Amino acid sequence: MEFQGSKDRNLTMLVDFYEITMANGYLEQGIGDRIAVFDMFFRKIPDGGGFALFAGLEQLIDYLNNLSFTHDDIEYLRSRKIFCDEFLDYLANFKFECDVWSVQEGTPVFPNEPIVIVRGPIIQAQLIETMTLLTINHQSLVTTKANRIVRAAQGRGISEFGSRRAQSYDAAILGARAAYIGGCTGTACVMSDRLYGVPAVGTMAHSWVQMFDSEYDAFKKYAEIYPENCIVLVDTYNVIKSGVPNAIKMFNEVLLPMGYRPKGIRIDSGDIAYLSKKARVMLDEAGFSDVEICASNSLDEYLIRDLLIQDAKVDSFGVGENLITSKSDPVFGGVYKLAAIQNDDGSYTPKIKISETIEKITNPHFKTIYRFYNKSNGQAIADCVTLFDEVIDDNKPYTIFDPVATWKKKTLTNFTIRKLLIPIFEKGKLVYECPALEDIRSYCEEQVSLLWDEVKRFEFPHRYYVDLSDKLWKIKNEMLSKYNFG
Amino acid sequence: MEFQGSKDRNLTMLVDFYEITMANGYLEQGIGDRIAVFDMFFRKIPDGGGFALFAGLEQLIDYLNNLSFTHDDIEYLRSRKIFCDEFLDYLANFKFECDVWSVQEGTPVFPNEPIVIVRGPIIQAQLIETMTLLTINHQSLVTTKANRIVRAAQGRGISEFGSRRAQSYDAAILGARAAYIGGCTGTACVMSDRLYGVPAVGTMAHSWVQMFDSEYDAFKKYAEIYPENCIVLVDTYNVIKSGVPNAIKMFNEVLLPMGYRPKGIRIDSGDIAYLSKKARVMLDEAGFSDVEICASNSLDEYLIRDLLIQDAKVDSFGVGENLITSKSDPVFGGVYKLAAIQNDDGSYTPKIKISETIEKITNPHFKTIYRFYNKSNGQAIADCVTLFDEVIDDNKPYTIFDPVATWKKKTLTNFTIRKLLIPIFEKGKLVYECPALEDIRSYCEEQVSLLWDEVKRFEFPHRYYVDLSDKLWKIKNEMLSKYNFG
Repeated sequence: MEFQGSKDRNLTMLVDFYEITMANGYLEQGIGDRIAVFDMFFRKIPDGGGFALFAGLEQLIDYLNNLSFTHDDIEYLRSRKIFCDEFLDYLANFKFECDVWSVQEGTPVFPNEPIVIVRGPIIQAQLIETMTLLTINHQSLVTTKANRIVRAAQGRGISEFGSRRAQSYDAAILGARAAYIGGCTGTACVMSDRLYGVPAVGTMAHSWVQMFDSEYDAFKKYAEIYPENCIVLVDTYNVIKSGVPNAIKMFNEVLLPMGYRPKGIRIDSGDIAYLSKKARVMLDEAGFSDVEICASNSLDEYLIRDLLIQDAKVDSFGVGENLITSKSDPVFGGVYKLAAIQNDDGSYTPKIKISETIEKITNPHFKTIYRFYNKSNGQAIADCVTLFDEVIDDNKPYTIFDPVATWKKKTLTNFTIRKLLIPIFEKGKLVYECPALEDIRSYCEEQVSLLWDEVKRFEFPHRYYVDLSDKLWKIKNEMLSKYNFG
Repeated sequence: MEFQGSKDRNLTMLVDFYEITMANGYLEQGIGDRIAVFDMFFRKIPDGGGFALFAGLEQLIDYLNNLSFTHDDIEYLRSRKIFCDEFLDYLANFKFECDVWSVQEGTPVFPNEPIVIVRGPIIQAQLIETMTLLTINHQSLVTTKANRIVRAAQGRGISEFGSRRAQSYDAAILGARAAYIGGCTGTACVMSDRLYGVPAVGTMAHSWVQMFDSEYDAFKKYAEIYPENCIVLVDTYNVIKSGVPNAIKMFNEVLLPMGYRPKGIRIDSGDIAYLSKKARVMLDEAGFSDVEICASNSLDEYLIRDLLIQDAKVDSFGVGENLITSKSDPVFGGVYKLAAIQNDDGSYTPKIKISETIEKITNPHFKTIYRFYNKSNGQAIADCVTLFDEVIDDNKPYTIFDPVATWKKKTLTNFTIRKLLIPIFEKGKLVYECPALEDIRSYCEEQVSLLWDEVKRFEFPHRYYVDLSDKLWKIKNEMLSKYNFG
């Protein structure tokens, strides 16, 4: 049987139960086809970073394109005995009819701005809540984390080695895809190469070394089979006393006579800073200054930064569990909130979710985002969330202001603007072509390069401006003042 | 198209690339059919807990039963141009022939004891490394975390609500299964109900409340459709001034006249301790002392414990991201290491992995585990890891000792013993029948009840004894002394 990539998988029933009870409820109340607008947005950047990276759109599209309820799904729902026949018939004949806008994969995104907008019959827009969040949350989390690690390595390659510690199968497969978008050079995960074209790499585990009578023999046997790009694992017994000397011996006695330059050694445990420096000297003195040292051992962006400060002689890193789970902050907290309902005359009634937890108050209305760039150097200056049909004239100065500390204003001149949300589905029809993975990865790298260094630092990054247009701010504040917080 | 549950999914290509290079290498070196023994074990209990819970065996079995390489898989591998034809033919005709032993799902497990053992041709045993780890690591992580949260709630129900923040699709679906084994009462995830029978529950989101002209109207409309077990979400605008009064009004004006008792209210934001106590008084005074209060808002075991210390009036909890990702410690660090190679005469040569990182040194040899229980009260006393064929006589005193601080000894009398590892596959044939999910859940609850309270506390739990038999300890120490650590 062929593996089912997410392209072919029907994940329609991956919904929260309440989405189905609500959908049935809307239909029973006769408002199932009211046009609603939902925003996906997030409130907090993982790891206290200055920006997040958006990913997962291709899989969201696959899901929406495959939305359909099987006969068994319908019978399962019928067996719950709380859904009406009309609703079950609706699901059995389900045809996706929503409009979807999204930012592109690889785009830097910020809290409290809509990164996906869904407009359509409430019964449909509600049903896709869980999968929209799940898909975007996961990949955005891993892309964001991978990019932190990639930046810490200052140009050295990062391979994603975390499948075995991923939170189940898709987390490994799609996590490797997300990590690649964030700048990793490859993955250990073969399935991710098969399905998405993420380059799969890998050489040997300790078991290979243990299977032979001696470490030298294990290296020799490996090199005979894989003389090209030969990398050996040197920490099975003792890196300095055994692993590196045996590697050098094998390079001289096996690879060079075969006509191949060795590629590298890998250290997977112990004091990487100390061991890599010792190994570097040994390799250099043996005439192998071109042989690379790869390190792996529960690394993350902070350990890599620290290794480089210590002048560790590492040319590339393999990063596992801390990347694939974003261990230090493993949740991307995207939410999906009702923002507006369309009236019969085509106008919108904005909706807001109030909360005693101030951060949980939403931005109401059907919206869009403009990103402002400095016309001289291309750098991103600020995002402005506006009503959907607001137009910003990039020939005139534009004043942005902080939505909370409203006296903090800045008038922008000499800028270019770009609408970040682009149409993906129009009335259920896909109108967007997903770029190739390599192109997404390049776009991501370019967009990150347009952010100020102050936004990119790990400690206390500058908070990038995400402001509301004057019109939107007024609407929100009028709505807030209607509720009594006393 | 029908959704593919893990039962039907072919995940054969979910391997690390180095497993394939090694497998091809073993074959090319003529040692592909050497019988090797691999252990899966872990080194650290998540969250500094006193025990972990083993889960995922059913999915591991599904994977092993579906192991097969498709024509496209073979062609993909051929295109890498480093694998020999004989190896590709071997994969094309792959037939799983290993023996597998495992502890049962729901069993408390401890560091440095084998929880899965694979014995078979090295070429095969090596290939299943990633999936064995990935499958068991993920579900054991979530079951362990769920059980902590369940225990913190002291009998109050915990619903798993985390799908939207899970690390991709399987993490949501199988995470809900794992959480149920750990003691949760249900999940929001419909797919997990469909595929595994985890009870799916859920009522309404804020969007339901926002869709109607007033909060009261939203509650009324909901109750008309779902009068049974009716739970309303009271924090869309203001819990005390709006949500609870509207709920009480609806109970009186809609549910009671229809002949139904209301079931509950849910609070999803704000100060749960304060709000639940206020709401409790309001409900009691209105004659609804039987109406339950459910709380959800980024909860975990510590927050729940703290809420109960504050005497919060919460009857059940919905727990999302902190459970489904095991946020505070999102990695279950299971590893898969070569432990022995079988010789032609049937004996075993033990194998060890040395490391400058002491914790990374493995326990060599083909092994098994005995768990000792106090015969009088049934409580678990210790585990002893022995050679595979060692027999412990439960009629004689047995002395266990700490494998590092060897002077720490304890002679056990009045005990019963149980072998934890049971046969799952024999020469590739499944010989184990997976229990029903409900039975796994009950078994788990029972086994946890047999642990001392000191092992179960969150802070500085007692370290449960996992000792090596005298024979095994001697073999390990002889091997260690052969290597020079100077």
